[in-house]
Amino acid sequence: MSAPLGEAGAVAFDDPGYRAAVVDLLGAVAYGELSAFERLAEDARSAPSLADKVALGKMASIQFGHVEPLLDRIEALGVTPVAALDPFRKPFDAFHAKTAPSDWLEGLIKAYVGDGLAADFYREIAAFLDAGTRELIIESLADAGHADFVVDRVRRAIESDPRVGGRLALWGRRLMGEALSQAQRVAAERDSLAALLAGGVDRPGMDLAALGRMFSRITENHARRMAELGLAA
Amino acid sequence: MSAPLGEAGAVAFDDPGYRAAVVDLLGAVAYGELSAFERLAEDARSAPSLADKVALGKMASIQFGHVEPLLDRIEALGVTPVAALDPFRKPFDAFHAKTAPSDWLEGLIKAYVGDGLAADFYREIAAFLDAGTRELIIESLADAGHADFVVDRVRRAIESDPRVGGRLALWGRRLMGEALSQAQRVAAERDSLAALLAGGVDRPGMDLAALGRMFSRITENHARRMAELGLAA
Repeated sequence: MSAPLGEAGAVAFDDPGYRAAVVDLLGAVAYGELSAFERLAEDARSAPSLADKVALGKMASIQFGHVEPLLDRIEALGVTPVAALDPFRKPFDAFHAKTAPSDWLEGLIKAYVGDGLAADFYREIAAFLDAGTRELIIESLADAGHADFVVDRVRRAIESDPRVGGRLALWGRRLMGEALSQAQRVAAERDSLAALLAGGVDRPGMDLAALGRMFSRITENHARRMAELGLAA
Repeated sequence: MSAPLGEAGAVAFDDPGYRAAVVDLLGAVAYGELSAFERLAEDARSAPSLADKVALGKMASIQFGHVEPLLDRIEALGVTPVAALDPFRKPFDAFHAKTAPSDWLEGLIKAYVGDGLAADFYREIAAFLDAGTRELIIESLADAGHADFVVDRVRRAIESDPRVGGRLALWGRRLMGEALSQAQRVAAERDSLAALLAGGVDRPGMDLAALGRMFSRITENHARRMAELGLAA
């Protein structure tokens, strides 16, 4: 592995607030990816066919592969992965408990829509980071191959029974609502992340108008994903 | 990928019985590995600590990586993976239903002892195959890293409460019994595998005495694994 922190990054990391925020962000992304892995493996278990089982198992493995580089970076920053991930265990687990899918299709939509929302959000925040951290986070958010798979399976299900479309559209809206309220809870509890978004003397930040634009970009992307699934957002 | 069948292999594959037996064996190994992946991912979900969760997630990913080369080879032999794996779904799922672990330690022991038994068994059968198939199967049976992990966790648990040793020893014996009765069921149902062990005009086979020696080797390995765990076999 090359040096974990690039030159520009090394300067930014002199600020303990910045360092804490990066550790927090890496911890959140890593715990989220770990949860996504567990969910995909769980979906593989309940897959209706062997082909689906293998497809989901492969996605789960790719997803897990995203976790380790994040844990390595957290350690390079002098923090144990357990300490960095732990603050996010409760809110993420609460999100998953509140959005337990009642069937295979709901599980697929949750993987696609939920991970899509999370990825959009982290990509927005990553724009405020040093290049090394930004690249690491963006790489870890790469689609594990589920987008095409989920779109195909959900569209086929709606084709064979158009009534499921209504139920699944409601499900997508519920996921969006729960994800937003969870994100808000995390931001309120983790001062470091809020400070990161607000910027610093030598770092650009987001004013309220920019924050509003960020949320409309995230909402638009969500609507686009729902449309790809053939569902009303 | 190089040609799927080596030169010697290509001759052996002219025999449709041999070909069918190899497809059967690859199907059994692949379905077993897929089940092992699902079980490890499930154990990751119920891990008592984040470190254990990450360790098991990693093992699950490595385990899944063993499945794909097997599926590729099945396809190279002109059979769809679904067709090759399907006959093993029922007996393997029945084994797992009968040996559902009641806690984390039982799950770990099942992963170690169960996969160890399966690997020993397949390695014995692989000795009767062409070199290409043999190597593929032996590679796919490589330890996903759980041996050391499980031995460490089980020994620690017994140290802190010696009474769990008795319960876990019983569990190990039950796993062995269920595995043997499942293997017998599979052998009885799949003529091709029985024919493979019996050999052919130009292929060595196993007589009853050799079969007996094979089972004592498997039993000895099982006892060695139980001893490593600190359990009476």
